[in-house]
Amino acid sequence: MKFESARSRGVRAATVRDLGEFGLIRQLCKDLPRAGDDCAVLPGNLLLTCDPVVEGIHYLPGTPARQVGWKAMARNLSDIAAMGGTPRWAVVSLGLRPNTPVRWVTGLYAGMNAVAGQFGCEIVGGDITHVRREPFVVVTMLGHAPKPVLRTGSKIGDSVFVTGTLGAGRHLTFVPRVREAQWLVRHFDIHAMIDLSDGLASDVRHLLRPGIRFDLDSAEIPGKLPAALTRGEDFELLFTIDPRDVTALRAKWNFPLKLTEIGRVVRGHGVRLDGRPLSAKGYDHFPKRR
Amino acid sequence: MKFESARSRGVRAATVRDLGEFGLIRQLCKDLPRAGDDCAVLPGNLLLTCDPVVEGIHYLPGTPARQVGWKAMARNLSDIAAMGGTPRWAVVSLGLRPNTPVRWVTGLYAGMNAVAGQFGCEIVGGDITHVRREPFVVVTMLGHAPKPVLRTGSKIGDSVFVTGTLGAGRHLTFVPRVREAQWLVRHFDIHAMIDLSDGLASDVRHLLRPGIRFDLDSAEIPGKLPAALTRGEDFELLFTIDPRDVTALRAKWNFPLKLTEIGRVVRGHGVRLDGRPLSAKGYDHFPKRR
Repeated sequence: MKFESARSRGVRAATVRDLGEFGLIRQLCKDLPRAGDDCAVLPGNLLLTCDPVVEGIHYLPGTPARQVGWKAMARNLSDIAAMGGTPRWAVVSLGLRPNTPVRWVTGLYAGMNAVAGQFGCEIVGGDITHVRREPFVVVTMLGHAPKPVLRTGSKIGDSVFVTGTLGAGRHLTFVPRVREAQWLVRHFDIHAMIDLSDGLASDVRHLLRPGIRFDLDSAEIPGKLPAALTRGEDFELLFTIDPRDVTALRAKWNFPLKLTEIGRVVRGHGVRLDGRPLSAKGYDHFPKRR
Repeated sequence: MKFESARSRGVRAATVRDLGEFGLIRQLCKDLPRAGDDCAVLPGNLLLTCDPVVEGIHYLPGTPARQVGWKAMARNLSDIAAMGGTPRWAVVSLGLRPNTPVRWVTGLYAGMNAVAGQFGCEIVGGDITHVRREPFVVVTMLGHAPKPVLRTGSKIGDSVFVTGTLGAGRHLTFVPRVREAQWLVRHFDIHAMIDLSDGLASDVRHLLRPGIRFDLDSAEIPGKLPAALTRGEDFELLFTIDPRDVTALRAKWNFPLKLTEIGRVVRGHGVRLDGRPLSAKGYDHFPKRR
């Protein structure tokens, strides 16, 4: 849309940066009816998701291979968790420079297998190509959920919860919240859920739909502001639940992980923090020029 | 293995180039029991495959986006075809430079949708990241096969067939042989099958197993030598079948595409062309230094 109007005014063609990551995804999703959640939901409640990790963007050139593998795999596990699913199988596409030590590749696989194995997920194949400059790892994961939790199921009056601590930046070593998410969907009617990859301020917006507003309370957010709002790559769970379930949830929750109620879903639109509008300042892969 | 011995001799660590693409895949496959065919075969005969396409490697910077999309999708469709399967769903991981025109991305999707739609395959989601230099497209595809045809099912005495013409280099516009493969497995007991991505001389070796040899007849190979042996990216089907089925196969085959018997499976090892050993000179993404 934006591209068309820019063109009709005789301006240079719009770029990916002009539209931003989310703008681009929105444009693509118009034609992709199953897209727009953490995973695509297929018949039989199969979940399919993929996530690229690129040197210089998601990890530094000197990052140990094992950590790169861990991160590439854990991000996908986290997407399956965000829908309350069970991760099952993964395939791996690698782009490698020819001078990459074989040791680096075996380290990468060690990291991927280490975190996948914790959650019963098996690497079943993949493909390798060479690149000249920027190595990448794309993991694609297939999982299953008895009843997939979507991003858009929040109801007015819902309590908003988040797991763990935000803004700590453990992006290379984080443990995806697969077990916690599975426990939540087994014991409660979770209305909406997402994993926090781009920062709370940004990701909470993915739970919005017309007519609802998220009211967050800064005093309750588990982590230092503003990092807890914007830093990204926490991979904690953000979810909403009927307020009548909160007492039972608190009583039954038996994980060492923190569980914090940070706000409410109300009638309205957008997101507020302490009553004031909160803008999305999370991580966008193609931030617009201002 | 090779890496270990190099290290124990105090030589510099082995690189991906030293091992070669197939050596590296062999090493990784030792730990991945479901890997080593065109697709991973999962319970319920689900097929899962992925294939990276990188600028400067699989297409030139000036290649029309639609052709890039077509190629990225068609390669995966061809992998599903090679197991006699039906492609169903695909997810797409994109690495894009921020200055990429949005028009390029919509062209890419137009190309992917054009070829996927021909075979009833639907793009259901994906993810986008930015890259600094080398854009990439990784399509991952999920399909289904009533009875997946593996690479290793050849029997001594089998006739070896190939579809189409080899060495023509239509890598950006090729039509994956999904329909032909589905027809073959519906009507005949196809013992082994693969799609020719790296060239006949290289890919036929993937059908080898201990005790069998492939004898090919150069006069029968449909295409100019040596291109037909080594050029790669033909994406035609290579398969073996009981010789008693050949007459019926020729009689029933009703596609405009050529179908040629190019050799026999015999007792022995390796591959021969006109009685002389044929080496793999197909495309290796990390050719060893000589």
